[in-house]
Amino acid sequence: MSDKDTQPLTGKDLARKPRGFPDKREGLIHAQAKLVETVTGVYRKWGFEALETGAFEYADALGKFLPDDDRPNAGVFAIQDDDEQWMSLRYDLTAPLARFIAEAGQTVGRPFRRYAAGPVWRNEKPGPGRFREFWQCDADTVGAPGFHADAEMIAMGAEALRAVGMETGEFVIRVNTRRLLNGVLERIGAFTPESRLSVLRALDKLDRLGESGVADLLGQGRLDESGDYTEGAGLAPRQIDFVLQFASSRAPTRQETLTNLDQLVVGSEEGWNGYNELRSIVEALDAMDVPEGDVVIDPSVVRGLEYYTGPVYEAELLREVTGDDGKTYRIGSIGGGGRYDDLVARFTGETVPATGFSVGISRLASALAIMGETVKLDGPVVVLNLDKDSPAVALEIATLLRRAGLRAEAYMGGSGMKGQMKYADRRGAPAVVMVGSNEIEAGTVTIKDLEMGALKAKAIQSNEAYRDARPGQIEVPRAEMVEAVRRIVEAQG
Amino acid sequence: MSDKDTQPLTGKDLARKPRGFPDKREGLIHAQAKLVETVTGVYRKWGFEALETGAFEYADALGKFLPDDDRPNAGVFAIQDDDEQWMSLRYDLTAPLARFIAEAGQTVGRPFRRYAAGPVWRNEKPGPGRFREFWQCDADTVGAPGFHADAEMIAMGAEALRAVGMETGEFVIRVNTRRLLNGVLERIGAFTPESRLSVLRALDKLDRLGESGVADLLGQGRLDESGDYTEGAGLAPRQIDFVLQFASSRAPTRQETLTNLDQLVVGSEEGWNGYNELRSIVEALDAMDVPEGDVVIDPSVVRGLEYYTGPVYEAELLREVTGDDGKTYRIGSIGGGGRYDDLVARFTGETVPATGFSVGISRLASALAIMGETVKLDGPVVVLNLDKDSPAVALEIATLLRRAGLRAEAYMGGSGMKGQMKYADRRGAPAVVMVGSNEIEAGTVTIKDLEMGALKAKAIQSNEAYRDARPGQIEVPRAEMVEAVRRIVEAQG
Repeated sequence: MSDKDTQPLTGKDLARKPRGFPDKREGLIHAQAKLVETVTGVYRKWGFEALETGAFEYADALGKFLPDDDRPNAGVFAIQDDDEQWMSLRYDLTAPLARFIAEAGQTVGRPFRRYAAGPVWRNEKPGPGRFREFWQCDADTVGAPGFHADAEMIAMGAEALRAVGMETGEFVIRVNTRRLLNGVLERIGAFTPESRLSVLRALDKLDRLGESGVADLLGQGRLDESGDYTEGAGLAPRQIDFVLQFASSRAPTRQETLTNLDQLVVGSEEGWNGYNELRSIVEALDAMDVPEGDVVIDPSVVRGLEYYTGPVYEAELLREVTGDDGKTYRIGSIGGGGRYDDLVARFTGETVPATGFSVGISRLASALAIMGETVKLDGPVVVLNLDKDSPAVALEIATLLRRAGLRAEAYMGGSGMKGQMKYADRRGAPAVVMVGSNEIEAGTVTIKDLEMGALKAKAIQSNEAYRDARPGQIEVPRAEMVEAVRRIVEAQG
Repeated sequence: MSDKDTQPLTGKDLARKPRGFPDKREGLIHAQAKLVETVTGVYRKWGFEALETGAFEYADALGKFLPDDDRPNAGVFAIQDDDEQWMSLRYDLTAPLARFIAEAGQTVGRPFRRYAAGPVWRNEKPGPGRFREFWQCDADTVGAPGFHADAEMIAMGAEALRAVGMETGEFVIRVNTRRLLNGVLERIGAFTPESRLSVLRALDKLDRLGESGVADLLGQGRLDESGDYTEGAGLAPRQIDFVLQFASSRAPTRQETLTNLDQLVVGSEEGWNGYNELRSIVEALDAMDVPEGDVVIDPSVVRGLEYYTGPVYEAELLREVTGDDGKTYRIGSIGGGGRYDDLVARFTGETVPATGFSVGISRLASALAIMGETVKLDGPVVVLNLDKDSPAVALEIATLLRRAGLRAEAYMGGSGMKGQMKYADRRGAPAVVMVGSNEIEAGTVTIKDLEMGALKAKAIQSNEAYRDARPGQIEVPRAEMVEAVRRIVEAQG
């Protein structure tokens, strides 16, 4: 099929990167760092402490809890260690935490409240906005049996999203519980794991396909526009109606939604337990004064990860995101979490109640980038390198500027005056400092205010007094250089 | 040999992590974050901008520049992608930069000055203090032909080490150049790549083995104490003397070292070029006012990475590090770098002069941790959960404290009063807030000052006025709670 095994790539063709591992430039890196700082700041304030695990875990310790996938062995990047044990790059920050807790045993007290920020890796098909390496920022409480701990995660998640700049109406955290779903499936008689999974998958598409599309998937199956056929869950019309009634029982307030659900769980113990989980969460959300608009109870929420055992939460960006290109983007999920009481029990047999919340940092950073909400960064003052006989003088000048606290560099390339000015412009330099042979002889430097220079070039002639106070170019004695440059930089800040 | 393939691990045995990928707790994480912030802060101040690449690169694009190793294919973690191309986790931050530059071509201007911080992975044998995942923090200038760019890297590296708390005499950056070494080998007639490599390897052990050990390695070979025999480079006595004279020509000042070297390169063009590289670097270091003690010219420096083409630098911690255990540790290298003019040419054929410096963040963090220089972190105020009939009240109280800017959490575990106090103590809580049924009825809270409580428990009875101002436990109306807690927290800060 392909001859890439026999014909190694050479030259420029060799310079390529694997799909789904994007390079990141200045603006995105700073935006992401600010998000991590803000979100971990909220987690810390709520009493969580930092714990980080390594990139690799043994594959059997990590377990396989990613949503089903058609490709065998898909989902993770796995590698065989030199002792032949399989290791996998972590696909989230939760499964490694379970390993840590099982390994540490009672040497960490409980509840153990930790946060972590870092990259995770998924060996999935990359696409636009869909990466194989992305950052998450998680908080988890281990050893917390009550549903108030889940409510705390949800309330803290809402606070974290507000802290990064979202307002009520721009995001929502939708809350559901696995038990409620199980109870409904029990009531309609969908007992087998297969039919249960089909129903969950259908529900998960409610947003995208609407009620009639989901009704097809719950019943006989669905043919989409591209001609692909998806087999249905095979429910009878009465069962379908019941599932849809359940999925759409979300009301304007959390209390009203509870009232709607109250009717639907009658006769199912599992459903009743789920209802009580949600009631406990609503009570706690109210005690923490969480706005109705920020967190809703939504019985249609299905979260993919297989390790959840109770409440699940999905954080979604509602704000329509319009890019510089004028296009409208829908970001969707920007975080979520849930309760995973059995994840530690895999190792120890002991059920360790635990719950967590994860913010999708990369998703959020992409959203902010599309919205043009980038961090404004100041360029360095560039000291030009003009006198071939005194190449070290630019280094000396740049050192003086940095010691005075200014961001400054000596030009290091091989270009002449014109190329050096172009460089300073590209770097967003507020000013350049020039020290040619004349200045060296006179003990002076020439400073060019690049912003004023640009304004002048555009022939903006208004506000003469201001222009006089900030001439485009001045020559000053070396002893006055630092203050002269500082004035220019601060005037632009 | 082993039956681990047929007998899968179960239970507690499963809860283990691969060697060389340590978990990191609160103190180390904060120390590392502070190092990254400080070092990248210095890089930014020198005019560098952020660029980060992904964890994976195509193996052929990354190249193999790690020091030779006896194991085949050792050094990197490699994996085959679904299109059968081999990808490797980056083993440093420089090789991916070369790929970026080759791929981006002229869309990034030059000089391109970037910094990056992140984990790198090496598939090596882990040991104490030797990890398979560790953090580096790099700066690179691409498109900088002059050796002043190398001097800038070295001076900036010294400034970064000072910024994290090192003083003159506690660290040193040792500078050498590949060309000088090559010139000396040319003069003594060691022309073949094999003999050249043997000489470099012998020189690299000067610190550890001393002159007589290295003389053996340069000559007929060496038998170490464990009985292992290392074959020698086979030089004649006169050649050995010359190499050792060269390697030990480091003098107290950079200028004196240059004077010593001047004599040794006579007759070798390559050696003379190397000498002039160092002369240019010394001139620039002086222009940037870099203390003699921080940066020395040391002809014995050999840096392992194969891609260096000119000046190389090695940063070393000199301070003896004494642990809490009373033992003395030698950390050694904490960073370094060099010039790699041919790394981009691998792709494009075009020689792109480039130089960089890398700080070993994990090494440095370990050193600081051993020295007990950890970040002091304040614990959260813990609101106890005492009244089973009003479980949400603790959430309400914790919300009020956080809204006032305090770090606070409601207790989420299942323990009673005693267990909850133990928890607060373990978390380093400055205070606990208690709201039992009595307090709920009276509209009050009880606040316990844990530091004062501890002092009292130790029967320290001095300073009565102080004790009176900070009683161990007070009951206040809810409206006064925030201020009362704040006073206690601030008194401990």
